[in-house]
Amino acid sequence: MARIVMKFGGTSVADIDRIRNVARHVKREVDSGNEVAVVVSAMAGKTNELVGWTREASPMHDAREYDAIVASGEQVTAGLLAIVLQSMGVNARSWQGWQIPIKTDMTHGAARITDIDGSFLIKRFGEGQVAVIAGFQGISPENRISTLGRGGSDTSAVAIAAAVKADRCDIYTDVDGVYTTDPRVEPKARRMAKISFEEMLEMASLGAKVLQVRSVELAMVHKVRTFVRSSFEDPHAPGMGDPLNPPGTLICDEDEIVEQQVVTGIAFARDEAQISLRRVADRPGVSAAIFVPLAEEHINVDMIVQNVSEDGSKTDMTFTVPSGDMDKAVHALDKVKAEIGCDSIQSETGLAKISVIGTGMRSHAGVAATAFKALAEKGINIRAITTSEIKISILIDSAYTELAVRTLHSVYGLDKH
Amino acid sequence: MARIVMKFGGTSVADIDRIRNVARHVKREVDSGNEVAVVVSAMAGKTNELVGWTREASPMHDAREYDAIVASGEQVTAGLLAIVLQSMGVNARSWQGWQIPIKTDMTHGAARITDIDGSFLIKRFGEGQVAVIAGFQGISPENRISTLGRGGSDTSAVAIAAAVKADRCDIYTDVDGVYTTDPRVEPKARRMAKISFEEMLEMASLGAKVLQVRSVELAMVHKVRTFVRSSFEDPHAPGMGDPLNPPGTLICDEDEIVEQQVVTGIAFARDEAQISLRRVADRPGVSAAIFVPLAEEHINVDMIVQNVSEDGSKTDMTFTVPSGDMDKAVHALDKVKAEIGCDSIQSETGLAKISVIGTGMRSHAGVAATAFKALAEKGINIRAITTSEIKISILIDSAYTELAVRTLHSVYGLDKH
Repeated sequence: MARIVMKFGGTSVADIDRIRNVARHVKREVDSGNEVAVVVSAMAGKTNELVGWTREASPMHDAREYDAIVASGEQVTAGLLAIVLQSMGVNARSWQGWQIPIKTDMTHGAARITDIDGSFLIKRFGEGQVAVIAGFQGISPENRISTLGRGGSDTSAVAIAAAVKADRCDIYTDVDGVYTTDPRVEPKARRMAKISFEEMLEMASLGAKVLQVRSVELAMVHKVRTFVRSSFEDPHAPGMGDPLNPPGTLICDEDEIVEQQVVTGIAFARDEAQISLRRVADRPGVSAAIFVPLAEEHINVDMIVQNVSEDGSKTDMTFTVPSGDMDKAVHALDKVKAEIGCDSIQSETGLAKISVIGTGMRSHAGVAATAFKALAEKGINIRAITTSEIKISILIDSAYTELAVRTLHSVYGLDKH
Repeated sequence: MARIVMKFGGTSVADIDRIRNVARHVKREVDSGNEVAVVVSAMAGKTNELVGWTREASPMHDAREYDAIVASGEQVTAGLLAIVLQSMGVNARSWQGWQIPIKTDMTHGAARITDIDGSFLIKRFGEGQVAVIAGFQGISPENRISTLGRGGSDTSAVAIAAAVKADRCDIYTDVDGVYTTDPRVEPKARRMAKISFEEMLEMASLGAKVLQVRSVELAMVHKVRTFVRSSFEDPHAPGMGDPLNPPGTLICDEDEIVEQQVVTGIAFARDEAQISLRRVADRPGVSAAIFVPLAEEHINVDMIVQNVSEDGSKTDMTFTVPSGDMDKAVHALDKVKAEIGCDSIQSETGLAKISVIGTGMRSHAGVAATAFKALAEKGINIRAITTSEIKISILIDSAYTELAVRTLHSVYGLDKH
C-alpha cells in the first residue's frame, strides 16, 4: 500500500467522457490498495472563458475578484470527478482550497502556498475515502480565494503530496514522460526513466513544458518523488507491459538514480533576442543600473554574459530576453543610457538558446569542450556561452536550432538505448 | 439614507453588457447615499449547463457535489459584478455564501437558511463598501457548499435583508411588478402598487411566477418590505416619472396598505387533474390512508374537497394534482384501494383552478357568492370549491380559463384605475 497524489490537467478532464477516463485511473490505484488524493484542473477552455469575462468586465480588474471567478473552474471539475467516482463505487469527495485549507499569501493571481493542513485529508484516507481536490487555488489570510497562477495545479499537487507525506505524486499529462530532447526536433529522443530534481528544473525552465517550474522547485525542497505519465494510456491494455511499472519519468533525488549519465538532456528555447551594451563603464552598481529598470518593466532576462574588461575601465554586457520583449527592453535602457555610461545599445532577434543538462557534469571534465567541438564541426557559430554547475547554455542563430539539438543529442550518446 | 438589498436574476446578468446595466442600477442607489448589498444569480444558461454536466456524470449524484458544482455559477457573476462596479468607481467586493457566512441545514440541493451573520456586511457598509453576494448558496454544518434550490436567490436576498435589517429588498426582474392577473390573459390587468405578504403568498403559490414562495414566506415572517421592479428600465429615463418613486409593486405588511381592496387579484393554474374517490368509508384515518401514499410518491396534492356524508358511513373525496402526476397518483391509490374501502377511483384531466385573492374578504361577506353568480351567468360549470380566509379557489374545465379569469377580474372591479 502506498499514499499517492494524482494530478490531471485541463485536456485530461475536458468533458465528462474524459473525466470518466480519469476516474478509471483513480479506481485502478484504489483497487491496488493505495490511499489516493486527486488534484484536477479546470475543464479545457473553461479558464480561458472565465478570464475572457473578467477582461470584458474591466481590463484593470481586482485580482481578488479575478481569483474568485477563475477558481470556479477547478471547483466544477472536482465535483464532477467526485460524482463519477461515486458512480463507480469509489468513496470520494471534493475539496476546495478553502476547505482543506490550502493557505497562501496575499499575492492574488500568483499566490504562493504558505501552509497546508493535511490532517483532514489523512483522516479521510484512513476511512478509505479518495480526496478530489480543486487545483490551482487556495485561501488568503483575508479569507478570500486565491489562485496560484497558470499551471498552478502542478504546484497544488506537489504541495499536497508534501503535506500528506505521499509516497509519490503522479502527474498525468498528454505526454508519457520527459524526453532527452523534444521528439519533434529529434525523433531519436528517448524517454528518461528517471531524472533528478535539479536536472528537471533546468529542463522545465528551458521549455520542456511538462511540468511547472515552481512545482519542480517545491518537489525538490520537499523531496516529493514525482512521476510524469500519460493520462491517455491504460496501463492494463495489451502491449503496455507491466501495469505496476508503467511508462513515464520519475523525477527524484539524485541518489535514487543509479546509473548517472554525464548528460541527461538537451533543451532549447527559440525566439530569443540578444541585447548588447558596448563599452559599459566597469564600476560597482552598473549591473543594477541595467537590470533594475528591466525588472520594473517585468522583462524576464535570461542569459547574462559579462566579460572581464581589457583595461579595467570599460566592458561589454550581453544578455537575452524573449523576442517579444526586446523593443520594450531597449526602450527602457535608452532612458538610463547616460547613467550606465555605455557607447551603444545593440539588439538582435532570431536567436536560440541550446542547453546541455546533466548532473554528471560536476564530476566530468570536458563536457563543454565536446559541445563546442561538435558545433564547430557543423559550422554553427556560438554567440555567447553561460554555464552553471549542471548546465551549459549556448546562444546561436535560431536557423541552426534543429541541427544543433541533433548534433548535441548524438555527441553525448543520448540516441542510444 | 436607507439600507437596501438589490436582487438580480439570471436574465439580468446574462452577459457582461447586462451586468453593466445592473451595475448602473447599483451605482444609482449608491449615489443616492444608500447602503447597498446586491444578490446575484448565475448568468442565464450557466446553471443549466452545470446541472447538465452533473447528470451526464451520473443520474444519481451526491447532492453535496451537485451543490459545489452548481454554486460556482453565482460565484462567477458576483465576481464579475464587483469588477464592473469597481471600474465605475464604486467600492465593491464579492461575497460567497461561506464567506459571510450564510449558514444552512444539511438538505443539500434544497437547503434552508438557519442563520446569517450580518455583522461583516454591516461593518463594510459603514466603510462605504457595496457587498456583491452570490445568491442561491450557503454553507452546511459540515463546511460544505449548500444550495437553496431553484430560484433560491430570491430567498437569499430576503434573508440577507432580514439579517442586515435593510429598509427594503428590491427584487429586479423581467416584469415591472405584480399584476391583478396575468396580462397575457386579461390585457386590462393592472400593476398593483402594494400587496400584502399574505396575498402575495397566495399569488406566488398559484403561479404568478414573480417571486419564489419561500422568499415571500421569509419576507412575511421577518417583515421585509420587498419591492418587485424591472431591471430593464432606467428610472432616470425620460417619461419614467419620479425616479425616487419608480414603477413596481411593494410587498408589505397589511397595515401599510391604506386603501385595502376586497379582492386584490385573480390567479390561475392550468393543467390540473382531478381525482375522485367514490363512496369512501367515512372513518378516522381514511384521509391519511389516501394522502400518505401520495406524499411518499412526492405528488403535490393541491385542492382537497371532502363533503359531509349523507348517512355517516360513506363519502366522496376529491382532490387535484398536476396533470403530469395523475397516472402515478391513480396507480399509488389502486394499491391501497382495499384499505381505503372505496367503490371506485375516477380521474379526469384538462381542468383549471381559478383563485380569487384578497385580505378584504375577511371583513366582507358575499365575495364568494359574487364569483359563483358571475361564472354561472357565463355558463361556466363549477366542479369543486375550496376556500381559505383570503382566497376562494374554483375548479373548472380548462377551456373556460380565460373567460373565467376575465369575468372575475371585471366583476371585482380590478379593471378600473
